[in-house]
Amino acid sequence: MADIKYDIVKEIGVLSENAKGWTKELNLISWNERDPKYDIREWSPEHEKMGKGVTITAEELKKLKDLLNGMESGIDY
Amino acid sequence: MADIKYDIVKEIGVLSENAKGWTKELNLISWNERDPKYDIREWSPEHEKMGKGVTITAEELKKLKDLLNGMESGIDY
Repeated sequence: MADIKYDIVKEIGVLSENAKGWTKELNLISWNERDPKYDIREWSPEHEKMGKGVTITAEELKKLKDLLNGMESGIDY
Repeated sequence: MADIKYDIVKEIGVLSENAKGWTKELNLISWNERDPKYDIREWSPEHEKMGKGVTITAEELKKLKDLLNGMESGIDY
C-alpha cells in the first residue's frame, strides 16, 4: 500500500486510552496535503501508528453535535 | 473473513449522504450479540453493506460531546 501522507493540524481532544496506551482521539488532519478534515481514530503512543477511524467533515461534525445534544434519554449505554 | 453478526439497535441519526446514496450514520449497534455500542460508520442504502467506521463507548461519546460543545472557535473547517 502506498504511503499516506498526513499532518495532524490540531489535536482537539482524547476520548479514551486503552491498556496498551492507544488513544481514541478527535483531531483535525490534513491527508495527502489536502484541506484538513476532522477525524476520530485510534492512535498508538506518540501517534506512531494509526488504527481504524473515520474522517468527518465540518458539516457532519455539526450534525453530530446537534444529535448528541438532542439525545432525549441521554447517552446511556 | 468470518461473518460479523450485527444488529442495529437504534438509528440515532444521519450525518450525511453522498452521491451514491451511502450515508454516514450514528447508530447504536450490537456486534456479535454483545452489549450495544455507539457507532459512526458509512452504510449503503438499506444498510446492505457497511463501510469504514468506529465504535464508540458511552464514555467516549460523552467526552466527544463535551469536546464539541467546548470548541471555542467553533467547527470551522
